Amino acid sequence: MTTPASHDEAGVVPFSRARLTVAYDGTDFRGSAESDGVRTVLGELRSAIERVTQGAVELTGSGRTDAGVHGRGQVVTLDLPNGTDLNRLAHSLNRLLGPEIAVSGAAWADAEFDARFSATSRAYRYHVWNDAVHDPLLARTTWHVPESLDLSAMNAAAQPLLGEHDFASFCRRPKVGEGFPEKSLVRILMRAEWERVDDSPLLRFSIEASSFCHQMVRSIVGTLVDTGLGRRSPADMGPTLAALDRNAAGRVAPPNGLVFWETRYDGTRWDA
Amino acid sequence: MTTPASHDEAGVVPFSRARLTVAYDGTDFRGSAESDGVRTVLGELRSAIERVTQGAVELTGSGRTDAGVHGRGQVVTLDLPNGTDLNRLAHSLNRLLGPEIAVSGAAWADAEFDARFSATSRAYRYHVWNDAVHDPLLARTTWHVPESLDLSAMNAAAQPLLGEHDFASFCRRPKVGEGFPEKSLVRILMRAEWERVDDSPLLRFSIEASSFCHQMVRSIVGTLVDTGLGRRSPADMGPTLAALDRNAAGRVAPPNGLVFWETRYDGTRWDA
Repeated sequence: MTTPASHDEAGVVPFSRARLTVAYDGTDFRGSAESDGVRTVLGELRSAIERVTQGAVELTGSGRTDAGVHGRGQVVTLDLPNGTDLNRLAHSLNRLLGPEIAVSGAAWADAEFDARFSATSRAYRYHVWNDAVHDPLLARTTWHVPESLDLSAMNAAAQPLLGEHDFASFCRRPKVGEGFPEKSLVRILMRAEWERVDDSPLLRFSIEASSFCHQMVRSIVGTLVDTGLGRRSPADMGPTLAALDRNAAGRVAPPNGLVFWETRYDGTRWDA
Repeated sequence: MTTPASHDEAGVVPFSRARLTVAYDGTDFRGSAESDGVRTVLGELRSAIERVTQGAVELTGSGRTDAGVHGRGQVVTLDLPNGTDLNRLAHSLNRLLGPEIAVSGAAWADAEFDARFSATSRAYRYHVWNDAVHDPLLARTTWHVPESLDLSAMNAAAQPLLGEHDFASFCRRPKVGEGFPEKSLVRILMRAEWERVDDSPLLRFSIEASSFCHQMVRSIVGTLVDTGLGRRSPADMGPTLAALDRNAAGRVAPPNGLVFWETRYDGTRWDA
């Protein structure tokens, strides 16, 4: 934990950049990003921080997640008065925000560190429960697909997605005025892999990219599951990607199977 | 799946014994056993079966679980008209009862098979999340204990419980008229073991006994966790068991960490 440099001048309270790691059960939130009049993860987090610190803060998250999507590695940056006891703050936040939200880490950061713009990649996981019968204890965190899935076909179909591509076929185009600053839908995909967990019906998809456009993971997962069901061929994926047309892809997987797993800051920076 | 023998006589619809395996997220139920005016697992299950089969049924469960306790291996017996398509019934029930309840198995059984009285043992699992910070995605299914637990002390303390004992120190004595037919609190414990899952903060307690009296697993878990925290010594467990006094034991662990895992019918039968 770096101790922030003091910049006290003329009675102005000096602030420094802080970094929080945030986990959440997204079931009962309207997504992660703050939005007027609805309950969001960063909205609840900001209210709790302001209640504890008695001061206004602005939060930047490392990635936006949709309603119902969960988080484990959402990184949040904000400026806090120097001398703030971050361990104590995290402890207070966990008491106020638990059990739905947890602050699993809190540290001072360099002044130029930004949760979103300093990130070099984001990793998500998606879980499918592939059994004839659903599992009540996994209902909030998995997509139940009762028909048998061909995992090797799904992994073969994921291959053409690796590398740098325009992912327009898997992205919800931002509407004018909706506040998405992205123009390009070009992203770099480093990993897209399905695995079976412990010989169980639980399937885990791990995907990592420079960043993700809106609904990209769920659109890729839905298309790969359609492939696993035999409704699409692995050979269709190249043309689907090249079409740059959302109608070329398969359905969008439900949000509850998705977890924003990790934000990385140790690779090559890419405009997010 | 055994095809039931037909006993059609004088126009009476012949019935045969059926056996269902039931899983549930107990969070929003007032326990498993039917009870007037409250929402219970078997109450919801019975309503759904009667809706599908258009006939009245009576259910017997292999074990009672309290409000908030989950199930994976609750076995339920009932009589159904011969010729009932059990696979189709299970499918209809899963559509009506999901995602909170799942019927994971349905088969015909011998006429004398009884979910409760034929059972030779019951196995439960209890999960503790032993980390300073809670995990939002495990909040419904684990007890969050932030202080460090001594697993070897907890396993040492569990040893004296193995074998045949009067578990009065760990049982809520049934009140008169409460409908518990048990008089004796003597039970045979075959297993009581803590393990760490995958080097993670998740601790799993596996316990198996001929049967369990009311709150027995949670009372044992609470006492063992108190031992893991250093508030009790492993050497205290023998005297605690011998005291036959509920006040000798530790606290009762919360219900959300508990899962009724399995009902076994392959050992020596013991009066339940």
